[in-house]
Amino acid sequence: MFRPEVIAMSPYIPGEQPQTGKAIKLNTNENPYPPSSKVAEAIAAAASRLERYPDPLGTAFRIAAAGVLKVDPDMILCGNGSDDCLTILTRAFVGPGQKIRFPSPSYVLYRTLAELQGARFEEVPLNRNFELSDEFFQSSQDLRLVYIPNPNSPTGTLITHKQILRLADELACPVIVDEAYVDFAPTSAVRLVADNPKIIVTRTLSKSYALAGLRFGYLVANPEIVSMLRKVKDSYNTDMLSISGATAAISDQSWLKENVAKVIRTRELMTGELRSIGFSVIDSHANFVWCTHTKLAAKPIYEELKQRGILVRYMNYPSWMDGLRISVGTDEQIAAVMLILREIVDRRVGGGV
Amino acid sequence: MFRPEVIAMSPYIPGEQPQTGKAIKLNTNENPYPPSSKVAEAIAAAASRLERYPDPLGTAFRIAAAGVLKVDPDMILCGNGSDDCLTILTRAFVGPGQKIRFPSPSYVLYRTLAELQGARFEEVPLNRNFELSDEFFQSSQDLRLVYIPNPNSPTGTLITHKQILRLADELACPVIVDEAYVDFAPTSAVRLVADNPKIIVTRTLSKSYALAGLRFGYLVANPEIVSMLRKVKDSYNTDMLSISGATAAISDQSWLKENVAKVIRTRELMTGELRSIGFSVIDSHANFVWCTHTKLAAKPIYEELKQRGILVRYMNYPSWMDGLRISVGTDEQIAAVMLILREIVDRRVGGGV
Repeated sequence: MFRPEVIAMSPYIPGEQPQTGKAIKLNTNENPYPPSSKVAEAIAAAASRLERYPDPLGTAFRIAAAGVLKVDPDMILCGNGSDDCLTILTRAFVGPGQKIRFPSPSYVLYRTLAELQGARFEEVPLNRNFELSDEFFQSSQDLRLVYIPNPNSPTGTLITHKQILRLADELACPVIVDEAYVDFAPTSAVRLVADNPKIIVTRTLSKSYALAGLRFGYLVANPEIVSMLRKVKDSYNTDMLSISGATAAISDQSWLKENVAKVIRTRELMTGELRSIGFSVIDSHANFVWCTHTKLAAKPIYEELKQRGILVRYMNYPSWMDGLRISVGTDEQIAAVMLILREIVDRRVGGGV
Repeated sequence: MFRPEVIAMSPYIPGEQPQTGKAIKLNTNENPYPPSSKVAEAIAAAASRLERYPDPLGTAFRIAAAGVLKVDPDMILCGNGSDDCLTILTRAFVGPGQKIRFPSPSYVLYRTLAELQGARFEEVPLNRNFELSDEFFQSSQDLRLVYIPNPNSPTGTLITHKQILRLADELACPVIVDEAYVDFAPTSAVRLVADNPKIIVTRTLSKSYALAGLRFGYLVANPEIVSMLRKVKDSYNTDMLSISGATAAISDQSWLKENVAKVIRTRELMTGELRSIGFSVIDSHANFVWCTHTKLAAKPIYEELKQRGILVRYMNYPSWMDGLRISVGTDEQIAAVMLILREIVDRRVGGGV
């Protein structure tokens, strides 16, 4: 009874989400700090009128976000997490048999979205500097959508705006810049949307606003594109509580600045400490780091950490490498992790690092 | 750049959702009463851990709902509203060019879902008693999904379980029983899922649990089907607040019983009063009634009501008729509406009713 594409596809497996317990959880790039206190206040206020449908377009959020981003509210479409935005975009632009292009390694959901749509996909390897290779710019028949996660996961690296603009100029299809982690990076592509309407930027409040539990994301695009995308989304795709919470969160930019500064400080600290015990760590612009040990396999380290109550993400990209993606925690969490990691490395390498 | 199907489709227009103002709002079948007080308590508790991702499967809700429905938790899939469940089902079973069948008149979203999927659809008219006609049972090439809203909207009428079982026996594809309004009706098809795994039941907490603002629905299906549908849903399709609120709501069955009794009592009252001023009203098993006036056109009545601060739904089904769908409000709201309606009818008919 199922579509053959659905039978064939492998499910997207999100990182483990223990709902109880005391694990140090550094496996899904959650923010280690609670969100702005204004979020809970806004949610409590909204919880008193739940018998009514929400605003289908989340206009309160769109106005607040437009002020922060300096764009028009009609350039914003709200989503039930940025995954919802990615689903909407894929369904809007890509038909069965057509193609999606994205870099490798990158967010594994792009592949799932292509499979679900009965579409094909081209995974184009990043070059050695984690930039787009020449192959990425080549036009290709039936290519209907390009995903550029920026910063990328799991590498934490950035594609330059010059490359993004060149891509939008050279390809006939929309270029989606997935900025889930952008608040931890120096620059955003939002202002490029005005330069080339083929550029669409997606965002989430899960990471930098510490609202993974809320499911709220949005995209920024040319108003005519947004208007068409409204036809593709579920009519009430965001709920009253998440609209209110997200509006409060994005309106509290001083909380964001302070939080991001803390996370970046800890990220730099972690990077240095990991390197000091023999890990090779890519410079990250996100709230995680990708690392591999120069003398040890990644998977047994992941497993021993897990046994000892520390969840990090073990990821294996067959065409690239395997390694650990470790989310930035609090300074205390990272100190605890480093203590155990140092002991693991010392024991396994035999004190030789 | 957009898929031709998306360009061609007309958007689904939800009922007006004024976010402020004092209108009596009887146009989108919201519950006129606030939800169980346990919902806001559960939401406030959950709002303290929003930096974490939610449980991807909403297991707390599945366990609570399974207890109420007397099914296994693995027979339940949670959705971001039952619209999300309908989207998941359509994407799982129906490929481009294949067919969806549903009755006419019924929920207009089915058509939108078909169009979005590049699928075709067969709208089969209900017979004069609002039952499925013989044509509905006929097998058809490429038919991959059947939607039976039960109770139906806008008619409020019921298809018998005998007809649903016969349909699942005679057709090769899944039969989705959309039970958005079932708590206001005498029987549910949930127990039929065990009789025939082709039967899948969808539910929402928007109507009978007074949680339209929360966006939470679910479906009940054979566990193997649920397992496959998990591949199609967004990995975190329901958020932490809605899972907690929905779990609290479905656990408070005494609230539900009392609320449903009040709504049904008012529905019966409304039906009688509308008939007393010349409306033809179909006996409803939902929280709304469908009515047309024997001597007056529906649209001017809708417009005058709107001018006077009362929102009802004017619906026009070209192959059937146009009319008014009026949600059941509180007794006070209905008294206010009837006062104005009586005056409108007296004036327009010239006192002749």
